[in-house]
Amino acid sequence: MKTHLGFIMALLTLTGVAEAKLVKKTVDYRQGVTVLEGYLAYDDAFKGKRPGVLVLHEWNGLGTYVKHRVEQLARLGYVAFGADIYGKGIRPATPEAAAREAAKYRGADRSLLRERGLAGLDELRKQPNVDAGRLAAIGYCFGGTAVLELARSGADLKGVVSFHGGLDTPNPADARNIRAKVLVFHGADDPHVPPPQVAAFQEEMRKGGVDWQMVFYGGAVHSFTNPDSGNDLSKGVAYNEKADRRSWEAMKLFLAEIFRK
Amino acid sequence: MKTHLGFIMALLTLTGVAEAKLVKKTVDYRQGVTVLEGYLAYDDAFKGKRPGVLVLHEWNGLGTYVKHRVEQLARLGYVAFGADIYGKGIRPATPEAAAREAAKYRGADRSLLRERGLAGLDELRKQPNVDAGRLAAIGYCFGGTAVLELARSGADLKGVVSFHGGLDTPNPADARNIRAKVLVFHGADDPHVPPPQVAAFQEEMRKGGVDWQMVFYGGAVHSFTNPDSGNDLSKGVAYNEKADRRSWEAMKLFLAEIFRK
Repeated sequence: MKTHLGFIMALLTLTGVAEAKLVKKTVDYRQGVTVLEGYLAYDDAFKGKRPGVLVLHEWNGLGTYVKHRVEQLARLGYVAFGADIYGKGIRPATPEAAAREAAKYRGADRSLLRERGLAGLDELRKQPNVDAGRLAAIGYCFGGTAVLELARSGADLKGVVSFHGGLDTPNPADARNIRAKVLVFHGADDPHVPPPQVAAFQEEMRKGGVDWQMVFYGGAVHSFTNPDSGNDLSKGVAYNEKADRRSWEAMKLFLAEIFRK
Repeated sequence: MKTHLGFIMALLTLTGVAEAKLVKKTVDYRQGVTVLEGYLAYDDAFKGKRPGVLVLHEWNGLGTYVKHRVEQLARLGYVAFGADIYGKGIRPATPEAAAREAAKYRGADRSLLRERGLAGLDELRKQPNVDAGRLAAIGYCFGGTAVLELARSGADLKGVVSFHGGLDTPNPADARNIRAKVLVFHGADDPHVPPPQVAAFQEEMRKGGVDWQMVFYGGAVHSFTNPDSGNDLSKGVAYNEKADRRSWEAMKLFLAEIFRK
């Protein structure tokens, strides 16, 4: 029974049943001369250094939705950091403004997108409770595109996860730089990420010799993990509760795999 | 602490840590006048009725590989039954013989394939420790094709899982009969299940309004879960340890989801 009790105590510690206290902080940091405002969260009940997960936001910038994801990851025991790609105070309020802002980063020159992603990763890495050898990045929509681009920069990441992100890139040859394991969650009916883009991405991964996986969710369109996306499939953007839950569970498995010592 | 101990005891029971004793049996049963020889396994440490999982074999028939999968499922707490599609004693020993045997079932007329799958399902359902309302079917290669065809027959299944199965069917309209949730694991470089077949399958699922998911494993070819498949990718058939492990873990998540009460 002694062994069982030890096992149980270890389990309670691991699952943080003890006394979960979520620490949440807004963090100012810089990329070059630009001030960025990120969002950090971790659970104080976990002790010692632990893996860090960077979270990259949708095209409307670092807002409520992504902050909630950061907190969910913190509850899982990770140090989670919602990076800011756009800059402090830049939080587009309309789809038009968001499209304009996103376009600055995901055009033919992706260097600024990479720099901003790397700046967020550096900020995460230097947190005192982060195990710098165990880092991953996840991203939603625009942020999904961004984590893939971060991987293509050769960033020191164990893995990246894109949730309904755009898969196109002006730099397919850079797939050879990828050190991260790649996992892509894709709405099978997403009109914003059409079959030719999917095929090109798979070919890119193949040629780059990347460790990649891609999950197609039937009946899901763009932005399927965001409850604010409504339920009108004909718009090509809608929430899908099943695909949301399934992709989150699959992500948890993936993180457990890549962070295993 | 009392709650925690209760939780722990429940956990130990659930995980079958107590005293796992695997019961394994060869079972003769019939479809029409044909005698079939299946393989049943369950863990005696689990009490009461529990979900049942049917396992359909590769083109060489019910052999060591699939029996091992049946035992793995039994250890997870399910009643697992390796059905026999071909008939007692029919276990092709060469690829040529296997191809000939498989061709009898997966041609334009799939009715015998469905009948044999349904006979296996009936045998599983009538086991005294099976919860008849919670059944699933998984299959490998030829068996992957077979579980999809079983789903198309309208069989009362919570879910089906195909591991590197062929996705073609002469009966795409029958997707409307599907009551099972569908999960397909696919080697992204599988030459035996080429992109046009994948596209047709996805379109079939879409039109049928099926709850479907499909996972692509980069670098994996046909038969990626079978350690006997060797490691020569150029043959289009090879073992892939990562894809094997990942697909098994993903299947566990799926079964937990579909069997949740």
